[in-house]
Amino acid sequence: MSSQIPYKTYLNESEIPTAWYNVRADMKVKPAPLLNPGTGKPLSAEELTPIFCEELVQQELDNDTAFIPIPQEILDFYKMYRPSPLVRAYCLEKVLDTPAKIYYKFEGNNTSGSHKLNSAIAQAYYAKKQGLKGVTTETGAGQWGTALSMACAYLGLDCKVFMVKVSYEQKPFRREVMRTYGASVTPSPSMETDVGRKILAEFPGTTGSLGCAISEAVEVAVKNPGYRYVLGSVLNQVLLHQSIIGLEAKAAFDKLGVKPDMIIGCAGGGSNLGGLISPFMGEKLRGEADYRIIAVEPASCPSFTRGKFAYDFCDTGMICPLAKMYTLGSGFIPSPNHAGGLRFHGMSTILSQLYHDGLMEARAVEQTAVFEAAEQFARCEGILPAPESSHAIKAAIDEALKCKETGEEKTILFGLTGTGYFDLVAYQQFNDGKMSDYIPTDEDLAKGFAGLPVVPGT
Amino acid sequence: MSSQIPYKTYLNESEIPTAWYNVRADMKVKPAPLLNPGTGKPLSAEELTPIFCEELVQQELDNDTAFIPIPQEILDFYKMYRPSPLVRAYCLEKVLDTPAKIYYKFEGNNTSGSHKLNSAIAQAYYAKKQGLKGVTTETGAGQWGTALSMACAYLGLDCKVFMVKVSYEQKPFRREVMRTYGASVTPSPSMETDVGRKILAEFPGTTGSLGCAISEAVEVAVKNPGYRYVLGSVLNQVLLHQSIIGLEAKAAFDKLGVKPDMIIGCAGGGSNLGGLISPFMGEKLRGEADYRIIAVEPASCPSFTRGKFAYDFCDTGMICPLAKMYTLGSGFIPSPNHAGGLRFHGMSTILSQLYHDGLMEARAVEQTAVFEAAEQFARCEGILPAPESSHAIKAAIDEALKCKETGEEKTILFGLTGTGYFDLVAYQQFNDGKMSDYIPTDEDLAKGFAGLPVVPGT
Repeated sequence: MSSQIPYKTYLNESEIPTAWYNVRADMKVKPAPLLNPGTGKPLSAEELTPIFCEELVQQELDNDTAFIPIPQEILDFYKMYRPSPLVRAYCLEKVLDTPAKIYYKFEGNNTSGSHKLNSAIAQAYYAKKQGLKGVTTETGAGQWGTALSMACAYLGLDCKVFMVKVSYEQKPFRREVMRTYGASVTPSPSMETDVGRKILAEFPGTTGSLGCAISEAVEVAVKNPGYRYVLGSVLNQVLLHQSIIGLEAKAAFDKLGVKPDMIIGCAGGGSNLGGLISPFMGEKLRGEADYRIIAVEPASCPSFTRGKFAYDFCDTGMICPLAKMYTLGSGFIPSPNHAGGLRFHGMSTILSQLYHDGLMEARAVEQTAVFEAAEQFARCEGILPAPESSHAIKAAIDEALKCKETGEEKTILFGLTGTGYFDLVAYQQFNDGKMSDYIPTDEDLAKGFAGLPVVPGT
Repeated sequence: MSSQIPYKTYLNESEIPTAWYNVRADMKVKPAPLLNPGTGKPLSAEELTPIFCEELVQQELDNDTAFIPIPQEILDFYKMYRPSPLVRAYCLEKVLDTPAKIYYKFEGNNTSGSHKLNSAIAQAYYAKKQGLKGVTTETGAGQWGTALSMACAYLGLDCKVFMVKVSYEQKPFRREVMRTYGASVTPSPSMETDVGRKILAEFPGTTGSLGCAISEAVEVAVKNPGYRYVLGSVLNQVLLHQSIIGLEAKAAFDKLGVKPDMIIGCAGGGSNLGGLISPFMGEKLRGEADYRIIAVEPASCPSFTRGKFAYDFCDTGMICPLAKMYTLGSGFIPSPNHAGGLRFHGMSTILSQLYHDGLMEARAVEQTAVFEAAEQFARCEGILPAPESSHAIKAAIDEALKCKETGEEKTILFGLTGTGYFDLVAYQQFNDGKMSDYIPTDEDLAKGFAGLPVVPGT
């Protein structure tokens, strides 16, 4: 197993990229703008600033600037847990007996346990810079809430997290990490907001939903002076911040003199995939290189592979702007799946446009097969992967096994977004042979599509 | 916060030490030998080989060889998660406003979550090399059991873990990680062993103890052909394997041109502390350099600071050999403390001798103060530390604050042994203000000392 290529390649701190890359600058067809659901017209910066921080609004709307400098304070924070390693999966290759060369970019070596911290610190920094007191957000399983509470603790910013009640009760450990970082964590729906009180009056026993938690977080941000709302995925700004993943991966490959043939990432709202592929997609868009790019989503929530490319609400509560994306309809209720981070009905508008334009592929995989891949990976590579990340592992293993058949020595890069330390209920189900695979029927999908909004002129 | 010294210093893979360092070779007064409790005579290799692997017995008894080469297979495994970073705690220094320079060697970036993996892979490797089928062990909170199950999965070795029943039931997530790595995990006491059946007959409702789990694991190892017993701390061989921590730290400091003034580590059985300090202690023993070396233990289980230096059993079941060490008596029942890894009545014989000879200091700290330090560290350094590791953080912060008073720019190194992702019940107690500090009374200690064995000729 000796080789010129090390197991792990770390950039030096001085080699950490100092600017984020905005893939929109190189897209010939830009992602469609966010629309005001009332007027059907593109949202202006003025309409967005009561909800989002000013500089983040600029980043959200900027389709032209290719490189946006990373402020020094954010770079300092990045140095606490970055650069993340680019790992050569020698042990997995050996177990698979494949001629493929498998690499993964591992984002799990920080206490939030995932890549979410890359955007959390950026969004918290701009809130601090604007002189705000704090930020609000929602969280489901808790990865994003944890990342944001860490960033806010570091900057001395207040952090109010609305956590879906069922997760609040069933995932007390995530909640305690957030509390240890000083965040206030409120089970949603709560009595602290109009929308929460209204929902509780109507459905007294409800265990909450992401849509409701978003509504509560937005309400608190808009009603409290000095607060703004922040979001951990889907938005253009989030993909921008997450480009640090791909930029580091590319820089590490360049140092090694290696060029990947294909890049694989799991896709929920698109933050990890969009970040991982951005500089490679940039080369592809500029005609400088070609890569196969593969999005992997759960068969239980197949936005890309079975969704429609249409304007839709980003939230189930239908209070957010309309985004043009691959969607199952904001009313689509994904069947239970342990990869909570991939249970979103829509998809980043950037990735949606790229997919629509044939610049990337997508595939859906089933839950049990994903956990089989996760277990195989854990046993030979020594990292217990998050269920979300394991979707990418599954596709990478499949591609490596194809290489075994054909004898091709392809170089595969996949994104290992995080660790599964807070997902052991799912692993227990798998270990006990009690995991199920839910796939929505065409009728299930039809119900979701029936709720798609009619937008004048689109 | 810019500086010549990076936040994190990683050695290159080619710089990972290729031999463990055996500090016993440089000790003028060697650690006292293990004794056969029946005869009171030093245990021979022949007496140890039915329980331990042959090469590990050699390592256990070797007081003379300074460097023992690390087999290539172990080095390959180390490369999956090592080198671990030497981190400059810039953010903690800033928060404390101290002129001290604080570094920590972080061993938590692997799925076992601690340094235990360094010895687990070594012990599993020698078992495999000897042609054994598998190994048995006990685990309390689960760190050691997790590390061993990872090592065995990698090598294709069977792994039988006896987990103290109360932990098995209260810490199901640790159990599921072990199961995911293919280990069999049995709540102890069990019906699978004579000793387990006997205890269950006598105490039908017992929730088990580490002493009982050790007895079951040893029984299974001795009775099943092709099995041996392995242990995660206390033993000389374990400190030898853990020397990789200190060797890497020293190599990183040498690259930076920095020399620490003091080295701080938490101490339970001594595996982390012994590994961290070994090359520095070696220099001290050879008169080449001087360092302050500080062991930090919980006030609830104060082996060094309030124990006796005497021959004692390593296990509460009194079936293991006698070791000369600082001990509270094998019958001492430590009051509840969330740092499960530090709740051992005794201490490594190597560290005990070094402490007895005045070559290191020790101090005891209380639980609530430890969690205050843990929270402060987590909020600025971005890592949620294990309760065990947080004992070292507490002492490092205290020393840094002393530097603030005196204006001294001391360089402090401490060992951050692991992460606290599976210790959130403890953090929850702390967050809720419900944590207690238990300190044994002199009467409590007297009871433990009363059980010390009388050993002829010592």
